[in-house]
Amino acid sequence: MNPLALELNETLKGSVVEALFSDMGKRLYFPNGIISQGGEAAKDAYFANGTIGMAVAGGTPIELDSYKKNMPSLNSRETVAYAKTAGSPDIRALWKEKIIEKNPNLKGKNFSLPVLVPGLTAVLSYVADLFIDADKPLLAADPCWDNYELITCARRGADFHQFKCFENGKFNLAGLEAAMKADAEKYGSVRVLLNFPQNPSGYSPTKDEAKAIVEMVRKLAESGKKVLVLSDDAYFGLNYEDDIEPQSLFAYMADLHENVLAIKADGPTKEDFAWGFRTGFITFGSKALTDEQYTALTTKFMGAIRSSVSCSATPSQSLVLKALQDPAHEAQKKELRKMLQGRYDAVRKFVNTHKSSKLTALPFNSGYFMSFHVEGGIAEELRVKLLKDKGIGVIQIDPYTLRVAFSSIDEEKIEEVYSQIYDVAEEM
Amino acid sequence: MNPLALELNETLKGSVVEALFSDMGKRLYFPNGIISQGGEAAKDAYFANGTIGMAVAGGTPIELDSYKKNMPSLNSRETVAYAKTAGSPDIRALWKEKIIEKNPNLKGKNFSLPVLVPGLTAVLSYVADLFIDADKPLLAADPCWDNYELITCARRGADFHQFKCFENGKFNLAGLEAAMKADAEKYGSVRVLLNFPQNPSGYSPTKDEAKAIVEMVRKLAESGKKVLVLSDDAYFGLNYEDDIEPQSLFAYMADLHENVLAIKADGPTKEDFAWGFRTGFITFGSKALTDEQYTALTTKFMGAIRSSVSCSATPSQSLVLKALQDPAHEAQKKELRKMLQGRYDAVRKFVNTHKSSKLTALPFNSGYFMSFHVEGGIAEELRVKLLKDKGIGVIQIDPYTLRVAFSSIDEEKIEEVYSQIYDVAEEM
Repeated sequence: MNPLALELNETLKGSVVEALFSDMGKRLYFPNGIISQGGEAAKDAYFANGTIGMAVAGGTPIELDSYKKNMPSLNSRETVAYAKTAGSPDIRALWKEKIIEKNPNLKGKNFSLPVLVPGLTAVLSYVADLFIDADKPLLAADPCWDNYELITCARRGADFHQFKCFENGKFNLAGLEAAMKADAEKYGSVRVLLNFPQNPSGYSPTKDEAKAIVEMVRKLAESGKKVLVLSDDAYFGLNYEDDIEPQSLFAYMADLHENVLAIKADGPTKEDFAWGFRTGFITFGSKALTDEQYTALTTKFMGAIRSSVSCSATPSQSLVLKALQDPAHEAQKKELRKMLQGRYDAVRKFVNTHKSSKLTALPFNSGYFMSFHVEGGIAEELRVKLLKDKGIGVIQIDPYTLRVAFSSIDEEKIEEVYSQIYDVAEEM
Repeated sequence: MNPLALELNETLKGSVVEALFSDMGKRLYFPNGIISQGGEAAKDAYFANGTIGMAVAGGTPIELDSYKKNMPSLNSRETVAYAKTAGSPDIRALWKEKIIEKNPNLKGKNFSLPVLVPGLTAVLSYVADLFIDADKPLLAADPCWDNYELITCARRGADFHQFKCFENGKFNLAGLEAAMKADAEKYGSVRVLLNFPQNPSGYSPTKDEAKAIVEMVRKLAESGKKVLVLSDDAYFGLNYEDDIEPQSLFAYMADLHENVLAIKADGPTKEDFAWGFRTGFITFGSKALTDEQYTALTTKFMGAIRSSVSCSATPSQSLVLKALQDPAHEAQKKELRKMLQGRYDAVRKFVNTHKSSKLTALPFNSGYFMSFHVEGGIAEELRVKLLKDKGIGVIQIDPYTLRVAFSSIDEEKIEEVYSQIYDVAEEM
């Protein structure tokens, strides 16, 4: 193993991070060559900086006009220059502020500076790199996004465990607890991914349910089990009902217990409507971690970034930073959220006032989607028929689950779309 | 193993790809859920498309003004919309055209459509995912970029083998051949990464050397060994001397022998001076691959992309596409290359006319860099002294190798910078 990896592991010795690490988590390091020497030179090379792998003139990276003309208001450091491995320090600091604003429970608490990565998927993938392997399965809901299984099984060669997300029309707290206990018993530790608003159901826990989840993690931790709680907050803040827990579970997990490592996956991708920019953040916290240990785990993540993409795209980071600093941005977001709320309300009204012998809406109250449980496991047949006969596109998640993204259906079409879905299902 | 992975493996059965696959290469698949159903809906959902995980109004993704104002000439599909997993079809087709233009030997030959990924590092990382593992080492030059080792050892848990890149002031053909033979003997197959123009030396092979490399790979293949030749062409085309082989080794390897899988790593990052955009391409070819097998390996790469970043950044892709389509782009590139040629000529002149008892320039003729072999292994001490005493920043690659990026030093400063480097080295 590389001496730099051993050094980081030594720093993390005895911590919950060390106990949860995968094989790759143990191996990762950040080479102290080009990047760190370049950092020194950026400060001290007053005469000439020959460390930079870019074409530089008079100290400034050169930007071709063929790029410049499409981003006229940005300078070359905001467009063509390399970004830092863990992202722009300005945007990282600002995003942390925003996290605290949106999750007041985190105020005054110790947690990491967000690490910027190329999108939400990258957060999940890097966390899997560091903490999931053949002997360390991931636990997530069923149904869930198909990429969780791809990352866990195909990329990490690990087992993917699931708990039934809903039982009797409610979030399945008992199922989650039983699944966590089973993993804890078998492996001595648990790695659970909790995604709210949930894809594909569009469900977020109520305040009481959130409290119950926190308590079951606390109990596990107090019993001596190590627990990694990964909160996939991709759709954070898109809540359409009043009883939803308004803060991320991370706000309660970050300092819950020394046996709990809480990681938050979030970013402007969905929340700030910047899907194609590919900008996501890894933020982590644990009760007993020292500052040195925070730095060491950040360095491990930087090793994961360096060895996969080197760094994230600069134009995307600049565009996000400018928007977050723009006083008009929040107002524009609110407008868009209002539009989504209108679509949700229309869906909610339809579902509440119509009966179907084939379709049962899974609990939904947030996010971009809602899903139906389809009797008889004919979701694929229903999807194809809707597309071919009615020109309506929906997603078959599995034979029993049909997902509708109301985020992409104009409000005035919602009643017609849902009528067709119910009618076609009824005919089958 | 997932049935979709088994299906792809069945298609690749008996091919050089199957023989070279890593454990992860065998496991990877592309979920046929959300993305492919979304593709069908994009075509046929004439009434309403409820498959899209974006906020869409009237069929168009919504772009906030806070983003739009910094990219006024691009539409929302060119900025905030998700890109396709393997990248924009337009840019992929155009990049393939450009590859053939730059490598006329490829004209009429069968090789893949380039797969767009987030930067050159991502190409190397994905190729390592598919073909490197604990029993399948990577072979590369010494010295080389530190990320090769990080990817191979830390990310893939594999061994990293090196051959001495230069011997007696020349590219070490014999060393490369011996190292390939040793791997072939021990593992039955070889995975070799050849990076030209080389980082850190700035060396590209002459026409004769390129021919010799191709011949040694052919001989290995004819002896029944499977060979993966990964050409890292990051700095392609930045050639400053006339005897350099003008085409990528990929142009000769792509149809060399059915036992050879040739992969080309390239992109506009360095070549088109778009460092921070993070846009790279994976292109592959092998003599006996069928169309179905080309598709299957592309799908495997898409599984690697999906499970790590989902897709690459849209603004970056749009900016690159617009530039490549811009008639002024090539002229602007030429200007910049002329500037780099001027810097190279100044370095070349200095090195050819000065002697040092401590420094020997490694062979260099191309790219962004040149390096010195430092007598006594004091490269780090020399680097620190240059920075502290003279305000000159350079990179210590290893105790015997000091890298100077003349790409980032203004031409009028080059004589002074190199004088200082020689003087300070002499004093030590």
